[in-house]
Amino acid sequence: MKQLSGRLLSKLSCNAILVSANQNILFLTGFDGFCKGEREAYLLLTKQKNYIFTDGRYTEAVKKFIPNFKLIEISPSKKFTDILKEIVVKEKIKKIAIDEDDISVKEFLKIKKIVKVCSDKNTIQKLREIKKPYEVSQIKKACRLGDLTFKHILAQIKTGITEQELSKKIEMFILSKNASISFAPIVAFGDNSSSPHHVAGSKKLQRNETVLLDFGVKINNYCSDMTRTIFFGKATDEQKRIYETVLEAQNKAIKFLESSIVNRKSIKCFEIDSVSRRYIISQGFPSIPHSLGHGIGLEVHENPRLSPKSDSILKKGMVFSIEPGIYIPGFGGVRIEDLVFYDGKNPQLISRAKKQIIEL
Amino acid sequence: MKQLSGRLLSKLSCNAILVSANQNILFLTGFDGFCKGEREAYLLLTKQKNYIFTDGRYTEAVKKFIPNFKLIEISPSKKFTDILKEIVVKEKIKKIAIDEDDISVKEFLKIKKIVKVCSDKNTIQKLREIKKPYEVSQIKKACRLGDLTFKHILAQIKTGITEQELSKKIEMFILSKNASISFAPIVAFGDNSSSPHHVAGSKKLQRNETVLLDFGVKINNYCSDMTRTIFFGKATDEQKRIYETVLEAQNKAIKFLESSIVNRKSIKCFEIDSVSRRYIISQGFPSIPHSLGHGIGLEVHENPRLSPKSDSILKKGMVFSIEPGIYIPGFGGVRIEDLVFYDGKNPQLISRAKKQIIEL
Repeated sequence: MKQLSGRLLSKLSCNAILVSANQNILFLTGFDGFCKGEREAYLLLTKQKNYIFTDGRYTEAVKKFIPNFKLIEISPSKKFTDILKEIVVKEKIKKIAIDEDDISVKEFLKIKKIVKVCSDKNTIQKLREIKKPYEVSQIKKACRLGDLTFKHILAQIKTGITEQELSKKIEMFILSKNASISFAPIVAFGDNSSSPHHVAGSKKLQRNETVLLDFGVKINNYCSDMTRTIFFGKATDEQKRIYETVLEAQNKAIKFLESSIVNRKSIKCFEIDSVSRRYIISQGFPSIPHSLGHGIGLEVHENPRLSPKSDSILKKGMVFSIEPGIYIPGFGGVRIEDLVFYDGKNPQLISRAKKQIIEL
Repeated sequence: MKQLSGRLLSKLSCNAILVSANQNILFLTGFDGFCKGEREAYLLLTKQKNYIFTDGRYTEAVKKFIPNFKLIEISPSKKFTDILKEIVVKEKIKKIAIDEDDISVKEFLKIKKIVKVCSDKNTIQKLREIKKPYEVSQIKKACRLGDLTFKHILAQIKTGITEQELSKKIEMFILSKNASISFAPIVAFGDNSSSPHHVAGSKKLQRNETVLLDFGVKINNYCSDMTRTIFFGKATDEQKRIYETVLEAQNKAIKFLESSIVNRKSIKCFEIDSVSRRYIISQGFPSIPHSLGHGIGLEVHENPRLSPKSDSILKKGMVFSIEPGIYIPGFGGVRIEDLVFYDGKNPQLISRAKKQIIEL
């Protein structure tokens, strides 16, 4: 950590980095006890020390699990900003890098009064883009359980089941395998599938309806994410044409990756998006109303983004989704999503559930 | 909503309110499809219109479920800030109120370039403090299932079970009743219970250990939260003394509420905290290393805060926890938590699981 903070600080030309985002704290400390969505801790990496600020609910745990950080207990009468001020004076800190995507206006206005601030330029998020072997192995484990869940859930699909019920079955199966869900499963029947992020509701499944399933597993804090679309009954010719177009859009993106890796040095993430997107449009369908894909790790959605405006460059060690989709309001939608790990030589497909058209 | 925005705008002396926090959007629209922890939508309430900004993944759902808001689809080429600029010009907006706890520095710096901003003074959070009858009924439902879960889980406690396994059992039971958890259950055995927010781990339960269980249910987006501490075997005299002190600290807070309601007009939330805290200290134990309690509703932790520095005043319709605790590092801890609904006449205890000392 000492070495890391030195390297980061020299890059950012500042004297300290304030780490606030929950997943960045988890990444740097390995401690997963802080509640996501609440501000329960900060890390401060300076040239002299690594500090962790948290309240009395966590001091015991921090002493035990994060011994390499200097613990500073904060409370309503011993505020974070007061102690920050003391450290700034003591260590003669001139400028602190903050995470501009995570620090709130209220925090910013308080910190600015104490010390000059600058952007941390997403330094920690960028470190997280490149997965270490342990991280890849956890994501792969999560994907394997995702594949198994899909197989299990296919047998549960029957007339009259509701989206909510099927969603719960996904959740229960994952829990029963001693893992967690990485997000609330998306289950969409019939024309609900034209809503890419449909909230599973009380709709009951009828024959000849589409079933879109998008779910993820979390193992040791690492996430998977997969989407399959199947047909409960016979797919119509139009449904088949949509399905095959989406599948081909995904294949084209993967083939583009394979050939680019062989032929070139640098692949831009927006180019991968563009391959799938252009193919779908060329077949007469509307453009994908979302990015083609996203990085994944401690969070379901993280860098790199595979979107039309992404400035990311593909790097060895990245794990990301490729998930083209076609959505026709009033008719339905199809999305197929798999995770890809770029090992420096090949784009490895690490979710493996069946993708040939399924008619139940 | 029209009426609401007019009322809010006149209070804040600005021309528009930007609503960004996920739970505030849910509160104002009733739509629970946006992912918590990601910025997927904004609301803009102006004198003329109510707008909702979101991307293509949600346009179908918004049209269906939030028809009273003007939908504006944003995308990488049609950015939120560009459209905001157009509206600011068109509606001659001079100043926009923002949620300083939620808007990030990056967003703030962009918005500031377009229009003057001011704090929304937690207007929506304050509205959420006072629960409507429907909201109270949902929290009560969640509490009832919490009580049932506790009863069910008591029968699952046995030698050798791990914290994680017991935590999963809580989760599975809640899911099987068609509800969700409101947060990852805290299960702490033995001296792990001295960590108020212990993360359930691989520790196996042995005879004569404390079992601290803190979990919540979510029904129709409304949360419950309850803590019970039991003894797996005979409690020692010291454990009993700690338990009875915590229970009495909770009783004293409730009695203070009852008598204050009868005698006085205004009750400050910090006073309730103080009653329990002072009692625990008076018995020779360390002060509670957290607040005595917190409001609850769409979020597990929301206003009002029952903490030493809280400036909230108790109002009819508030629902909050009362959860004193004593934690002795290396020995263990006890916390007892219940939810209270203040109906204007009485502090109603709405979680009802047994609180007499339990020795299994």
